[in-house]
Amino acid sequence: MITSSSNIQIKNLIQLKKKSKERSRQDVFLAEGVKMFREVPRERLQKVYVSAGFYEDPKHRELLSNVDHEVVSDSVFDAISDTRTPQGILCVVKQFHYDLKDLTRGESPLCVVLENLQDPGNLGTIFRTAEGAGVSGILLSRDSVDLYNPKVIRSTMGSVYRMPFYYTDNLHAVLRDWKEQGIALYAAHLKGNHTYDHEDYRKSSAFLIGNESQGLTEKTAGMADHYIRIPMSGQVESLNAAVAAAILMYEARRQKFT
Amino acid sequence: MITSSSNIQIKNLIQLKKKSKERSRQDVFLAEGVKMFREVPRERLQKVYVSAGFYEDPKHRELLSNVDHEVVSDSVFDAISDTRTPQGILCVVKQFHYDLKDLTRGESPLCVVLENLQDPGNLGTIFRTAEGAGVSGILLSRDSVDLYNPKVIRSTMGSVYRMPFYYTDNLHAVLRDWKEQGIALYAAHLKGNHTYDHEDYRKSSAFLIGNESQGLTEKTAGMADHYIRIPMSGQVESLNAAVAAAILMYEARRQKFT
Repeated sequence: MITSSSNIQIKNLIQLKKKSKERSRQDVFLAEGVKMFREVPRERLQKVYVSAGFYEDPKHRELLSNVDHEVVSDSVFDAISDTRTPQGILCVVKQFHYDLKDLTRGESPLCVVLENLQDPGNLGTIFRTAEGAGVSGILLSRDSVDLYNPKVIRSTMGSVYRMPFYYTDNLHAVLRDWKEQGIALYAAHLKGNHTYDHEDYRKSSAFLIGNESQGLTEKTAGMADHYIRIPMSGQVESLNAAVAAAILMYEARRQKFT
Repeated sequence: MITSSSNIQIKNLIQLKKKSKERSRQDVFLAEGVKMFREVPRERLQKVYVSAGFYEDPKHRELLSNVDHEVVSDSVFDAISDTRTPQGILCVVKQFHYDLKDLTRGESPLCVVLENLQDPGNLGTIFRTAEGAGVSGILLSRDSVDLYNPKVIRSTMGSVYRMPFYYTDNLHAVLRDWKEQGIALYAAHLKGNHTYDHEDYRKSSAFLIGNESQGLTEKTAGMADHYIRIPMSGQVESLNAAVAAAILMYEARRQKFT
């Protein structure tokens, strides 16, 4: 059992928790909790760390059979965990590397494009909702928050393992390419002349979602084929980015299945 | 200018930031940022605190004319602020006291019922989305997170000033009463036999939303007139509570206006 936070493995886990660069360099990320452990594709699982308290339960030990794991003291676990009340299990998982074309597979793909999205909770929630809505893939501008941030990973509730995604340095080139492939680009925009439920998303479609406070950049919005508006009552000026994305994705799902 | 965190007003603000009980006792809450200041109903505004940095800008001084305000040093402002990068303006606002009947006004009210909702960001986001969707009022079980928690207030983006709400000690009595008034109760439930978009929400309706990890209690779910399901692709078992609420509220809005 590891009982010291100065143990070399523990020091490394703390680096992996905090630093995006270190995660990239080692090509791994951390995923915490029983659900994230259960759903991780086994071939991606490098190692599992559990707290002494977690390991005491025989049912938990059973979970760990055939898995390379290490027991650490509860206080050491607190140091590697990103949550206030840790469940006591943390996985080191190999990062995903998709091709751009993985995002647009299938007959009429439904894609989500995130430009400079900053809130970790929003990003994770968008991944989770996107899987639920049957989205094919998520394209992110390079300046968006790091998907492998522990808070993002947690909010995906496992969808990070299954949803194809791609960070691009050249968002506009990819969007131009998608347009040529016949994917219709829909910008959620306050100036939209159609409400979101008056468009047909059963064909190849992509929703463009912008930064939480600034929205889409003019250049990106300018590339859209259609501007759509989510109507708002009262004095509401905009919706939370994850909520707006959810309303659009689920309207697309509703159209596909009714 | 206040330059010490041991100033009696500053000590009180720190208490108000941290303690729900203290907010109740003084019947106020804190609202931070320019947007929250601009939208606060003037008759509820007790006092405004601004940082020295904020006060330097002549446009900001203009905002403050006719408003009882106090300038504090930037470091003191950091102590009273709940954000990492404070905008430099914080309001002390009188709490709201609605009657239950304020939630169901209008011809065919649309209500949201939150049972033991725990995440501050979710609660704030639900208020914001609810105003946008034209919801009439929000009923909360007493064990839900405190609406006046600074993180909740921030995520409402001002909707807290306008959306009627009520915390109840007896959720089931209120729901029984609503049923008698002809308000149809819809429980978002995994066992729902109808998908959410196959019900008619144009009549008086209320959506029951449960706790983030446990969902609705059996007793509350048992009071529902209809069980509705949000279909999910992939391996998604549930959606984020604020996202599920948003999909339902916006489907209701869509039906009302098409």
